[in-house]
Amino acid sequence: MNSNLSADRPTFVTHLECSLTGQRYEADQLHNLSAAGKPLLVRYDLGAVRGFLPRAMVEARATDLWRWRELLPVRRTENVVSLGEIETPLVPIPKSSGSPNVLVKDEGRLPTGSFKARGLVMAVAMAKELGVTRIAMPTNGNAGAALAAYASRAGIETIVLCPDDTPEINVREIALQGGRVYRVNGLIDECGAIVAKGAAEGRWFDFSTLKEPYRIEGKKTMGLELAAQFGWRLPKAIFYPTGGGTGLIGMWKAFAEMEALGWIGPERPKMFAVQASGCAPIVRAFEAGEEHAERWEDAHTVAAGIRVPKAIGDFLILRAVRESGGRALAIGDPAIVKAAEDCVKKDGLLLCPEGGATLAAYRQALIDGLIDEDDEVVLFNCATGLKYPMPKATKKLDKTKPGDLSKL
Amino acid sequence: MNSNLSADRPTFVTHLECSLTGQRYEADQLHNLSAAGKPLLVRYDLGAVRGFLPRAMVEARATDLWRWRELLPVRRTENVVSLGEIETPLVPIPKSSGSPNVLVKDEGRLPTGSFKARGLVMAVAMAKELGVTRIAMPTNGNAGAALAAYASRAGIETIVLCPDDTPEINVREIALQGGRVYRVNGLIDECGAIVAKGAAEGRWFDFSTLKEPYRIEGKKTMGLELAAQFGWRLPKAIFYPTGGGTGLIGMWKAFAEMEALGWIGPERPKMFAVQASGCAPIVRAFEAGEEHAERWEDAHTVAAGIRVPKAIGDFLILRAVRESGGRALAIGDPAIVKAAEDCVKKDGLLLCPEGGATLAAYRQALIDGLIDEDDEVVLFNCATGLKYPMPKATKKLDKTKPGDLSKL
Repeated sequence: MNSNLSADRPTFVTHLECSLTGQRYEADQLHNLSAAGKPLLVRYDLGAVRGFLPRAMVEARATDLWRWRELLPVRRTENVVSLGEIETPLVPIPKSSGSPNVLVKDEGRLPTGSFKARGLVMAVAMAKELGVTRIAMPTNGNAGAALAAYASRAGIETIVLCPDDTPEINVREIALQGGRVYRVNGLIDECGAIVAKGAAEGRWFDFSTLKEPYRIEGKKTMGLELAAQFGWRLPKAIFYPTGGGTGLIGMWKAFAEMEALGWIGPERPKMFAVQASGCAPIVRAFEAGEEHAERWEDAHTVAAGIRVPKAIGDFLILRAVRESGGRALAIGDPAIVKAAEDCVKKDGLLLCPEGGATLAAYRQALIDGLIDEDDEVVLFNCATGLKYPMPKATKKLDKTKPGDLSKL
Repeated sequence: MNSNLSADRPTFVTHLECSLTGQRYEADQLHNLSAAGKPLLVRYDLGAVRGFLPRAMVEARATDLWRWRELLPVRRTENVVSLGEIETPLVPIPKSSGSPNVLVKDEGRLPTGSFKARGLVMAVAMAKELGVTRIAMPTNGNAGAALAAYASRAGIETIVLCPDDTPEINVREIALQGGRVYRVNGLIDECGAIVAKGAAEGRWFDFSTLKEPYRIEGKKTMGLELAAQFGWRLPKAIFYPTGGGTGLIGMWKAFAEMEALGWIGPERPKMFAVQASGCAPIVRAFEAGEEHAERWEDAHTVAAGIRVPKAIGDFLILRAVRESGGRALAIGDPAIVKAAEDCVKKDGLLLCPEGGATLAAYRQALIDGLIDEDDEVVLFNCATGLKYPMPKATKKLDKTKPGDLSKL
């Protein structure tokens, strides 16, 4: 049996810190944003972790998300909640990428079928640890599904608000998993405004992206996992579908923590923040040299997961991308659809639209000379393609007169 | 990187053997059924494997399906095909099962979202190794999806026939993954008859359940994996949703092979073959003490994956169940639906209907005194619940006047 879920292990959180001002906040109590209105980051006594946890000790453990316990915020093992957060596989897509070195990290294998499970498993475990009994959250779909599943498991009530064009399957999944889900005639930030209002009224705890400090800690396991999978080095470039950007920020944090532990060196992948042309606030800010990103008006794209007009962690995303020597790239819907189609037809791997966007962005980056053909590259497929509409297939055959089988 | 996919490893297949008569067949050439019309089983030089492969060597490898290479039939590493066949997690469902010892093996995490990936990845790799260029197969849905994905990846053409009420998502998925899929106005065995006709005409290779020898070898990894996950012992009972029964037969074979290798002892789990009341040929034969099962007429159940009126491996399923001291159990649709509902609402785990059937069967077995409350039990959830219809969720909220938030 996997002892990561049952073994008591020491924890090393020292405090929380405003990501903009560096102001310190107490650990082990409930927080949303800092006084400056910015996300809080969890800080650890990395010196102590370094002394306690040699890399080999992690390597000897089962490979799931909870193997990283000493770098995670949950103090008490009884608060660990889990639906089986496996290490997601790296799948080569040689035919559609044209390179044997392009690997898709298939996050659709996580509980509830998306990488949102990483953030929400951690945030829900911390909510349990800190005594939260009622959570509300805005979502474009997958985050709400992950929240509902983990919160139901942990016995916490959830209210989930999503834009009214959220894929039907997500809405149903949230409800089935015990979340009270509402369709709202607005985008995700407008859903978020209602959640904020209810939180201010004391009706629930606000679980919006980066408005509570622990989703980022869960998402950072993507970075930890990549290092372990690559034998304690990192790929040359990472293409990450960027809505709220928690995962990109989380990976960047993970790399720094691992360097402080002596687990990896100072080399970093080029981080490519991938957005859709119809909603590209980070790309616009990146190109304008801005530190923050304005809200994107009239956002629209087939890749609903990255339809986030305004990201509260904008400056953290932009910093990481710039420090890494990467770029923010905007991809049109036709290129997104085409990339996903090529991948499933040629390599047999069904991507979600946001995953398709990363493959399209890879192609663009190649053309633009931002990376080389033989670079080792990781594309994040953030959710199972099964959650998204697929074209109809209509061929029929009569069992009593199947006719000339050579025509099938 | 995972070297299971790239390392050359010795292989130990000696021959194939008729599962009924024991007649020998050559390895390394194409076969369907034996002369007796029964499935062929792959045999290995287990003495040589025992000398070559200590258990610890397997333990040191990455945990995916290809770690078992010496117990698998693929000779040449270049024929290994893969979409990331991870070791599937064991997820406790304490609330809906009433016991901390009931674990769901969540096979929905495999490529294409079902355990069919295990069988088809192996069968497709062997088809590649043996030069097959065109495959046809009948399917209730998930097997066709797995076939299409792996075959497209391997550059092999596929024709897939499915009953006309196969879930829409499966049909679309097969088409999207490059399979030519037809809806047929009949059940899976009637689709199979058309496939057999075309195979007899030399139009394609017949990939029906157990009609080619290698799907069972892929499915047997469920048994190998369970032993490794349980620290080289086995659970007290296994509840397996049984249509064609390849997995049950495969696990039973795996247990025997591991005992021959000295990896486990002679203890075996009680094997429970779970069927739906509306299609229970194995249950009927089990209760009548028959060696073979008659076709079940007018088959119907919400659990389409186990709607198999006539299983060609019937006698192998019945033997394994009897030898194990287990039972074949038929569950009504209402109990299936209720079990799945309880599990997702209370434990946050979305099962497929066939997975729901195993939880319902567990409950029945408890009531009938076939197992004890504190027995360690594994239920197989054979596919992701996301592929199945979910009830509508219809609540709406107006962003301009969300109203009294205490009512959400």
